[in-house]
Amino acid sequence: MSDEFDIIHSYFAPLTRGNGAALGLEDDAAVLSAKPGFEHVVTTDAIVAGVHFLADESPANIAARLCASNLSDLAAMGALPLGFTLAAAWPRGTDEAFIEAFAAGLGEWVDAYDFPLLGGDTVSTPGPLVFSLTAIGEVEAGRALKRSGARPGDTVYVSGTIGDGGLGLRAVKGELRDLSEAHTAYLAGRFRRPTPRISTGRVLAGIASACIDVSDGLVQDLGHICEVSGVSIRIDAASVPLSDAAKAALEADAGLLEVILTGGDDYELAFTSAVPPGRGDTPLTAIGEVTAGPGGISVIDRAGNKLEIERGGFNHFAANAAAESSGS
Amino acid sequence: MSDEFDIIHSYFAPLTRGNGAALGLEDDAAVLSAKPGFEHVVTTDAIVAGVHFLADESPANIAARLCASNLSDLAAMGALPLGFTLAAAWPRGTDEAFIEAFAAGLGEWVDAYDFPLLGGDTVSTPGPLVFSLTAIGEVEAGRALKRSGARPGDTVYVSGTIGDGGLGLRAVKGELRDLSEAHTAYLAGRFRRPTPRISTGRVLAGIASACIDVSDGLVQDLGHICEVSGVSIRIDAASVPLSDAAKAALEADAGLLEVILTGGDDYELAFTSAVPPGRGDTPLTAIGEVTAGPGGISVIDRAGNKLEIERGGFNHFAANAAAESSGS
Repeated sequence: MSDEFDIIHSYFAPLTRGNGAALGLEDDAAVLSAKPGFEHVVTTDAIVAGVHFLADESPANIAARLCASNLSDLAAMGALPLGFTLAAAWPRGTDEAFIEAFAAGLGEWVDAYDFPLLGGDTVSTPGPLVFSLTAIGEVEAGRALKRSGARPGDTVYVSGTIGDGGLGLRAVKGELRDLSEAHTAYLAGRFRRPTPRISTGRVLAGIASACIDVSDGLVQDLGHICEVSGVSIRIDAASVPLSDAAKAALEADAGLLEVILTGGDDYELAFTSAVPPGRGDTPLTAIGEVTAGPGGISVIDRAGNKLEIERGGFNHFAANAAAESSGS
Repeated sequence: MSDEFDIIHSYFAPLTRGNGAALGLEDDAAVLSAKPGFEHVVTTDAIVAGVHFLADESPANIAARLCASNLSDLAAMGALPLGFTLAAAWPRGTDEAFIEAFAAGLGEWVDAYDFPLLGGDTVSTPGPLVFSLTAIGEVEAGRALKRSGARPGDTVYVSGTIGDGGLGLRAVKGELRDLSEAHTAYLAGRFRRPTPRISTGRVLAGIASACIDVSDGLVQDLGHICEVSGVSIRIDAASVPLSDAAKAALEADAGLLEVILTGGDDYELAFTSAVPPGRGDTPLTAIGEVTAGPGGISVIDRAGNKLEIERGGFNHFAANAAAESSGS
């Protein structure tokens, strides 16, 4: 491939979209002012070819996964995106067309979320492709959403629909054979091109008592809130909102309920609140309640019986990816 | 190795040193307030085993390289470190003792530079070890040092001594056979444990007209200032400050002048200024002058002749590492 400076100049410098903080990618660092009364929110997520995405995944889908997971972390904090830095470790001999397509894919997210590239690093590796993205956002001082504020009596909510990510992975792998083509495509799309809930997070900032994005799986992620807040949570399985495609999948195979509740990669927000949240552009659904004590998560079925959840979350695309990734 | 959550809890959470912005590594992101009148400075550098450090390098030296290169970028902007996020891609089967030693090595930098861990991501990789560190600093609004402000007539300065990094690499590789043991050890130490010039950068903030850290090599890095500022620079080779070890090496082999001027990894600051800079704790030496026009860098020897510099910088440890890395 070309000289790294050429790569940066040709494909990455345009992704700054002229944002002043990036200093044209010509300096040692980016410089960001916080608006008066605002704080900066910073999160880093890394993805590795063959671990977090299929080694033959399209560059645009890789860019989508990278941006969505980081933007979802900003959403979970109630923050508005300001921009990002990117470290890319390209395997030696990476085709320049691949880099160009990846940059084009990134560009869609830059524009859709007003999320310019502000800096980064480009290196070569003898190993697989690795990207590490650091997303920077802003939130009103003192209003950032955290995992620690859930209190007994709070209601538990989720945005959008749950389970599409985990089912989508199975759809991509061709494992949902009884499903219609349209439903299969819908779920695959939800897995490949998740939608970070930035505007929902903005509505919840200063309102929700605790918030997390559903990346590891609903049960696992609400478990994080339990641990950090020192509470328990009861979920009513029948209340968990499902897409039509997920309903169809569940009808064909009732065993998929566990995938829905623990499958991960939904990038919806799960949160607790003492007051009903305002309405954003994504539906919010009450699915349970915060209770006192150290019991953790329990999931109750329609008949009032407690479901046994064995997998407890974690489901990146590879079966052996359990516990491959955790971060903040 | 242990579960990633255990790794984070045991080895990385303590590196937050209780800093409030890190939220105990328990949330989706860190939250940083800027002091009134200050801006945040953000830089990301990645390193790959076998490319940026020897595959059998000690964990503490890897931590040193990672921290020094990023802190040096903050120094070059005139910023004071606030903290960092770290993405680590560990090869499968990484020995926990290695992780523990790496975290201990990081801890030295955390304490020496008041540079707590604020967040990050931990993933597994089938490939080599990769670290990506995003350093965040603060600088008085409008006083960040940039590469773009050099003007004809400004004097060119460097901090400390130049060439120790490039010579140190050769010392580590056993290539400086005529050198005393003490000088060899000194140069190897300068290569393995560089000292980012944070306090020098703070002295220069708002004073220097342009600044960069010497990571690719003095000639190459001053070349970046020339490009971005639209000026040329003349360096007097005899004025370039050398350590006793570098002087001894040069005496034994005059050909090493090129290594000194282009070898990189010094992590000193090179800057231009219209006024004499104040004194910090590191000596500053005038080595040349900014001139008008597009000629780029010229290096003049004691007799007034122009030296031909062929390598033009870039010298990470591997001979094939030319153009392996570039970033901001």
